[in-house]
Amino acid sequence: MNYKMMGKFLSQILMMEVIFMLPALLISIFDEEETATLGFVTAIAVISLVALALYFICRNSEKRFYAREGFVCVGISWIAISVFGCLPFLLSEEIPKPIDALFEMVSGFTTTGASILADVEALSRGILYWRSFSHWLGGMGVLVFLLALAPNRESGSGFTMHLLRAESPGPDVGKLVPKMRTTARILYLIYILLTVLDFLFLLAGGMPVFDSVCTAFGTAGTGGFGIKNDSIAGYSPYIQNVCTVFMLLFGMNFSCFYLLLLRKVKAVWKDEELRLYVTIVVCSIFLLVWNLKGFYPTFGETVRHAAFQVASVVTTTGFATTDFDLWPNFSRILLLLLMFVGACAGSTAGGLKVGRVLLLFKSLRRNIRRLLNPRRVEAVWVNGTKTSEEVIRNTNTYLVAYVMILVISILLVSVDELTIPTNISAVISCFNNIGPGLEMVGPTANYSFFSNFSKLVLIFDMLAGRLEIFPILILFSGSTWNRVNFSNKRKTDMWYIRDTRQWRGK
Amino acid sequence: MNYKMMGKFLSQILMMEVIFMLPALLISIFDEEETATLGFVTAIAVISLVALALYFICRNSEKRFYAREGFVCVGISWIAISVFGCLPFLLSEEIPKPIDALFEMVSGFTTTGASILADVEALSRGILYWRSFSHWLGGMGVLVFLLALAPNRESGSGFTMHLLRAESPGPDVGKLVPKMRTTARILYLIYILLTVLDFLFLLAGGMPVFDSVCTAFGTAGTGGFGIKNDSIAGYSPYIQNVCTVFMLLFGMNFSCFYLLLLRKVKAVWKDEELRLYVTIVVCSIFLLVWNLKGFYPTFGETVRHAAFQVASVVTTTGFATTDFDLWPNFSRILLLLLMFVGACAGSTAGGLKVGRVLLLFKSLRRNIRRLLNPRRVEAVWVNGTKTSEEVIRNTNTYLVAYVMILVISILLVSVDELTIPTNISAVISCFNNIGPGLEMVGPTANYSFFSNFSKLVLIFDMLAGRLEIFPILILFSGSTWNRVNFSNKRKTDMWYIRDTRQWRGK
Repeated sequence: MNYKMMGKFLSQILMMEVIFMLPALLISIFDEEETATLGFVTAIAVISLVALALYFICRNSEKRFYAREGFVCVGISWIAISVFGCLPFLLSEEIPKPIDALFEMVSGFTTTGASILADVEALSRGILYWRSFSHWLGGMGVLVFLLALAPNRESGSGFTMHLLRAESPGPDVGKLVPKMRTTARILYLIYILLTVLDFLFLLAGGMPVFDSVCTAFGTAGTGGFGIKNDSIAGYSPYIQNVCTVFMLLFGMNFSCFYLLLLRKVKAVWKDEELRLYVTIVVCSIFLLVWNLKGFYPTFGETVRHAAFQVASVVTTTGFATTDFDLWPNFSRILLLLLMFVGACAGSTAGGLKVGRVLLLFKSLRRNIRRLLNPRRVEAVWVNGTKTSEEVIRNTNTYLVAYVMILVISILLVSVDELTIPTNISAVISCFNNIGPGLEMVGPTANYSFFSNFSKLVLIFDMLAGRLEIFPILILFSGSTWNRVNFSNKRKTDMWYIRDTRQWRGK
Repeated sequence: MNYKMMGKFLSQILMMEVIFMLPALLISIFDEEETATLGFVTAIAVISLVALALYFICRNSEKRFYAREGFVCVGISWIAISVFGCLPFLLSEEIPKPIDALFEMVSGFTTTGASILADVEALSRGILYWRSFSHWLGGMGVLVFLLALAPNRESGSGFTMHLLRAESPGPDVGKLVPKMRTTARILYLIYILLTVLDFLFLLAGGMPVFDSVCTAFGTAGTGGFGIKNDSIAGYSPYIQNVCTVFMLLFGMNFSCFYLLLLRKVKAVWKDEELRLYVTIVVCSIFLLVWNLKGFYPTFGETVRHAAFQVASVVTTTGFATTDFDLWPNFSRILLLLLMFVGACAGSTAGGLKVGRVLLLFKSLRRNIRRLLNPRRVEAVWVNGTKTSEEVIRNTNTYLVAYVMILVISILLVSVDELTIPTNISAVISCFNNIGPGLEMVGPTANYSFFSNFSKLVLIFDMLAGRLEIFPILILFSGSTWNRVNFSNKRKTDMWYIRDTRQWRGK
């Protein structure tokens, strides 16, 4: 294990976090919030010191970097930015309990949006900004950001190159252009553009600037932290509709936007994942409107709430305009099942992803045909290209890991003796990075009543869900930390920037 | 599609059903239950006529038989025995509603044990016998029974031979000896022996003969229909413990018993599936006893109820000695999760099966290792033998199909607007062939309040669960009924007697 290289990398990640904390600090100073200012200053000092220390210790690192280091690096980076990122919450004493502060921060970076706060409006604006900004950063990925900023060095040298190394062929949704770094830059450009657009649309609806910024961050990262106690319910129907549209846009694969920029409209139109995504959204809205007949005074209001809630859940954002926990059971179960699906691969959304569901379904159909005729060899086709058997195998493995973590988490959390829908929906919601669940964790409730143990389980679930399971599982795998195991293995080109959410199926 | 061959086969299945109805008829005559007697006589007459008609129409069938016909045959046979088997319920007017009668019969044959009856004790003894006997027959498999009875013909000729054809190598748990028919005979011999033993132990505890017979049937098939309204709760602790032990025994892979008969104790001891099964059972009992502290007056009683309920749920039997729906939420969720696991492959139990869970877990671990080191090729080992990649792929496919059916069923059933735990547990319970669920379908409740539509969904789930999904899915697949698709394909050796529950992983 190349610890020095990982340490150096970690120091860069932490420095980046410090830089991103500065706007929050400025807001606190501007608002003359003394404790918040002090919190941010202390946090920035502590993180800078740690980062500098790490940098000087790990300065002279080897250049060799294996797949294993890549995974571990992703896992540890995310844990580190969460642990250090929650310092302002703690030091400003706005969230005094350490486990709660960590929960809130992990929920922010993983774009879950599950909160332990009963009264969000009591927070100072600096803290609110930091909380919402974590969604934006976590949505597209912390490591991708670093990648996008990385300087151009000569090929093959240094750590960054290993991050940028192109992967072997496959349905590589994340790779828009041959160079990984250029891809990262394009992704972030599209991301920033869309966020600004969202912000302007919100502003046009008469939303205050600060609210617009925070809501745009929450929408863009498909996070879901609101800055009001009633989430988005208090804003005008226009603003709610803007949120619906932008949530759905941020749930699309970003490569679609890139293709649109290149005017390849036909390729976008024919994208099977996008089609399934649109179908799921439209059908779900239709079913909800049918089930909610008579629940709201007008048909228009029913459609608005149904569309908002579907967009919020399927993109794993978690905003709410109404307490959907009061809806009929069919609607509640439909929303619960939508939580699993998630939006498109290569978006900022969590969940299983529509692309995986599509692939699982297609491989199931293929395998049933094969049972009928064992000698027939048939490939699985997606968007006109053959999917390699390795991708199918890995997608299946993903489902196995997904189900196992889900089941074990539900069992562990149930020690708290809450109601069954609370337990189940809390785990589903956190694991798929949504936020609200049903009953005691419904849209009007929060996660504060869970025991510390359950909060730890949910923190694990949020991280595992956001990083697509494996980087977190690998941290707990014995063979990862086994010195001899990999020492004489060849350097690998495969490096997974799992936190891009650019599902490459590999 | 070789319809004639299938018709001929179906006529044999139906004749077998008539023969098995005779004891129930005799009981009704002995008890002087006129309506029940009339019901059985009419049912027997109708089924015999249909069977004879089918036989004469389909007498001159071709000998060719493809995998597709095999699957379709299994699916249709099970639907047919259920539809015709529920005639006595209907005609005796003891279950007057057709959908309820069908539900009860499917629940019987699939060894689910979910009942729509509020008052079981109101049924006549002939009907009770038929209801419980369906568990016994369904447990080991209707087609296996026919196989075991099949006459020795010359190799390669006729339909039976195709059933008996050995499959390609693999972890073929079901194949004890090279000949499939001999295997079927050995299986049924062990099955009968164990059932008789169970019956004798129950009798020794002072249980009446009729009760002992029916309870032994329910235990052997891991079905769960009780003949008392309070299931097994009214019987003595001794009888409850006998049930616990025998439920667990019937949840073991029958090849273990065969190996024990051959005195290969070491092979049984080293069986990984059996070890995991025992571990799951022991750990679950331990956790329940811990969680139920103070719930029952004595420690002994707690252990008895915990062990009974774990055995009942993990073997997918569904008997109850206590209303576990009143237990704390942790216990209820633990039982809910145990419902998924099921007992060993090659037993009479339903569920995913411990063997599959083991294989899924092992392949997950292997694939995580492969992520760390993409160039390493590593096999999955079970019981000292390499598992073929095809088996792993099929097990993964099974999980995909399993999850999809579960999710869609939960959504469909939730149209009934019942509580969420009711909906979810009803589907889980029926799909895994258990019987009782939580809340409105708890151990003291029944399924009568579901709408007809939901009952149909649950009937589908029970059949799909019992036949391990594919024979039922294939009935609904377009390519199955496509004439040209398979006409010029080679005759296949692969034939799945899915109803054996002898999971071959293939």
